[in-house]
Amino acid sequence: MAFGSLREGKSKRIQSVKITPLAVPDMPLLNCKGVHQKVFLRSLIEVTTEGGLVGLGETYGSRRTLLGLQRSADALVGLDPLHLHDLRHRVVEALPEGGGVNAPTAVADHQLTDVVTSAFEVACMDLQGKILGRPVSDLLGGKVRERVAFSAYLFFKFAKQYDADRPDRWGEVLTPDAMVGEARTLVEENGFKSLKLKAGHLEPALEIETMLKLRETFPGAPLRIDPNGGWTVETAIRIGQTLDGVLEYMEDPVLGMDAMAEVASAVSMPLATNMVVIEFEHLEEAIKKNAVQVVLSDHHYWGGLRGSSHLARACQALGLGLSMHSNSHLGISLAAMTHLAAATPNLTYDCDTHYPWIETDIIEGGKMQFQDGTLTPPAGPGLGVALDRTAVDRLHQLYLETGIDDRDDTATMRRYIPDYERRVPRW
Amino acid sequence: MAFGSLREGKSKRIQSVKITPLAVPDMPLLNCKGVHQKVFLRSLIEVTTEGGLVGLGETYGSRRTLLGLQRSADALVGLDPLHLHDLRHRVVEALPEGGGVNAPTAVADHQLTDVVTSAFEVACMDLQGKILGRPVSDLLGGKVRERVAFSAYLFFKFAKQYDADRPDRWGEVLTPDAMVGEARTLVEENGFKSLKLKAGHLEPALEIETMLKLRETFPGAPLRIDPNGGWTVETAIRIGQTLDGVLEYMEDPVLGMDAMAEVASAVSMPLATNMVVIEFEHLEEAIKKNAVQVVLSDHHYWGGLRGSSHLARACQALGLGLSMHSNSHLGISLAAMTHLAAATPNLTYDCDTHYPWIETDIIEGGKMQFQDGTLTPPAGPGLGVALDRTAVDRLHQLYLETGIDDRDDTATMRRYIPDYERRVPRW
Repeated sequence: MAFGSLREGKSKRIQSVKITPLAVPDMPLLNCKGVHQKVFLRSLIEVTTEGGLVGLGETYGSRRTLLGLQRSADALVGLDPLHLHDLRHRVVEALPEGGGVNAPTAVADHQLTDVVTSAFEVACMDLQGKILGRPVSDLLGGKVRERVAFSAYLFFKFAKQYDADRPDRWGEVLTPDAMVGEARTLVEENGFKSLKLKAGHLEPALEIETMLKLRETFPGAPLRIDPNGGWTVETAIRIGQTLDGVLEYMEDPVLGMDAMAEVASAVSMPLATNMVVIEFEHLEEAIKKNAVQVVLSDHHYWGGLRGSSHLARACQALGLGLSMHSNSHLGISLAAMTHLAAATPNLTYDCDTHYPWIETDIIEGGKMQFQDGTLTPPAGPGLGVALDRTAVDRLHQLYLETGIDDRDDTATMRRYIPDYERRVPRW
Repeated sequence: MAFGSLREGKSKRIQSVKITPLAVPDMPLLNCKGVHQKVFLRSLIEVTTEGGLVGLGETYGSRRTLLGLQRSADALVGLDPLHLHDLRHRVVEALPEGGGVNAPTAVADHQLTDVVTSAFEVACMDLQGKILGRPVSDLLGGKVRERVAFSAYLFFKFAKQYDADRPDRWGEVLTPDAMVGEARTLVEENGFKSLKLKAGHLEPALEIETMLKLRETFPGAPLRIDPNGGWTVETAIRIGQTLDGVLEYMEDPVLGMDAMAEVASAVSMPLATNMVVIEFEHLEEAIKKNAVQVVLSDHHYWGGLRGSSHLARACQALGLGLSMHSNSHLGISLAAMTHLAAATPNLTYDCDTHYPWIETDIIEGGKMQFQDGTLTPPAGPGLGVALDRTAVDRLHQLYLETGIDDRDDTATMRRYIPDYERRVPRW
């Protein structure tokens, strides 16, 4: 009986850890540094206990992340999945000086130990739920809402991947009017009630025009804009002042704590970030400088689900708003995000998600479906998702075939625009 | 089977809540506001599930706390003990405007909803552990240390309670030399490696002399002093400067955030507090003013054990040290403190405890025994302690007999010194 064996602490220790790199077909979505590659990369984590239970996790698939996961996987053998402090300790020990994995990647700014611990933590939380017969949301204090609201994540985009024969189903979106069309489709298909524009690609006047047209088209919808630090302080202040009353928040308009503080003091709306506050240790400076007003949490680098709960409480204490960041991801991450959001009282903004941009998923039953822009956390136990093994094999095969093992939006952009230059800030 | 019934969420909901006020014989311990009464008050909480499991909690026994517990107890019926967010919600709903319970007491400065939620949270965590077959420390991420270190809590004291026939076994401690004697006994009997003086009773010169004699007698031991805000800023700075190099920290030398900041800027040692930072919302001001450097956590008002875990992570993030505060308490509180401390990585100071000052406990097996000044968390499941029903009945009987239903150290002092005046700051 599970109950009895738990008491003896025998049969539920981790026996093996499997890391599977996946490549997921992606759309040519634009940002201030370039364009998405034809695939985005994810690492699938399967943690198996002696009793044969399997905990699932999902994180970045960059070379650096993958190496970090692989180099610390063995250290998890023998770990009790409830012992999350021990988990962190084992990862830190296994990756001295961050594992000596220094390849610059999309997650280079995050502590590798945080990323790796977070990924394994989710798998352990999934295991905990399975061992205890409870959904992950219960392990985080229980749901405070039945449905978790997400926002429509709008991207300017090319019509097709550079080597594709024909346009994808979204077609080209490079003007304010085309963006309104994209938004209509995303909202029609998913019921989203709020919208976020990935900005920094078009010149500011056009992105301002885009936001104003979105405001006209969706009168009551909360709106956000996120240029990933692609603007100068001057540009950001001008845009913020122009969009006064239009935005619920402006996300990472500029890079750096001091620059954010300068913009924050000059605009009326709160500033949100997933670029200048990305570790607990950044909170103090952010508070002292009043540089940000909303932290975008992300369980992939804030220490997993428990770590993100701590972040939520800290934000509440410090008078900071809390929203949720997303990178391109699959259904395991989405399930984790939904459990976490459902159990976080002060997560009062709609969450970001790239999920509508993927065509297929690796979870049983296929893609999760938004209703009125919301999801319910899968019922559990644990995260409540299981693998579609055929889909996993296919995406792993794609990883091997494409040969792409890191993200480089700038290099990809040069396949469309050969003399494209990476400049941050761009405008 | 427990496992199966959990999945269906049927049989483990809370069915009843029992609150039992207790009076525990106490010593005439002195502080800057007076002297301990002949009993201290505690509330015993027993939360029973439909399946017949019982979760234990212990908190203040003041009139205000007791009323708060009683007025919200019914609201817990039907609660799933894993749903801690729902617990807080139910308590807040049950106590509009803090329950209208405004009697001034020792815990008047704490939000009653925090105190009540915290008390029930511990009982729910005990239940969670029992439902899941795990010690509470596992529910907090697992132990990071096998043994939890406590410090010797030194009090000046009268020889006996005002109405007693003969001195208690500790006798009168009103001079530096007598205090060295008390410290020797506490250390010999319990093996404590660090010492804390409850100060503010004697004039500063004598308390300084006391600390210097303790330093001489226990050369390597970390030392602390805590006058409960009994000093003026001027006095505190003078004492802090005189004891430079002697103290690991000075606790609540003065009252108020600005006064603490003034002292902090003038002395070399960190300032600790359980009086000016007592809610999450106080952290921001404390950080901005650099008013405190060490927060003394206390699961009795920081939202329980999970709340205290959040506090720990916030302190780490904000560069604040973390130690643990104590009021007079019994073994349920001590077990909870020990589980929490064992599972808190950055709790790097020895914890405070009044426990050596009680003669008997209400837990099965009698008082927990310190070894080398440390305790191991009881093995569990849950908190790992059970009630000695005879002892409970006896202390409840004592509660009814004494008629004391609130703490008033000043009034008690006047039984010894009729013209005693309460003055904070005193020196």
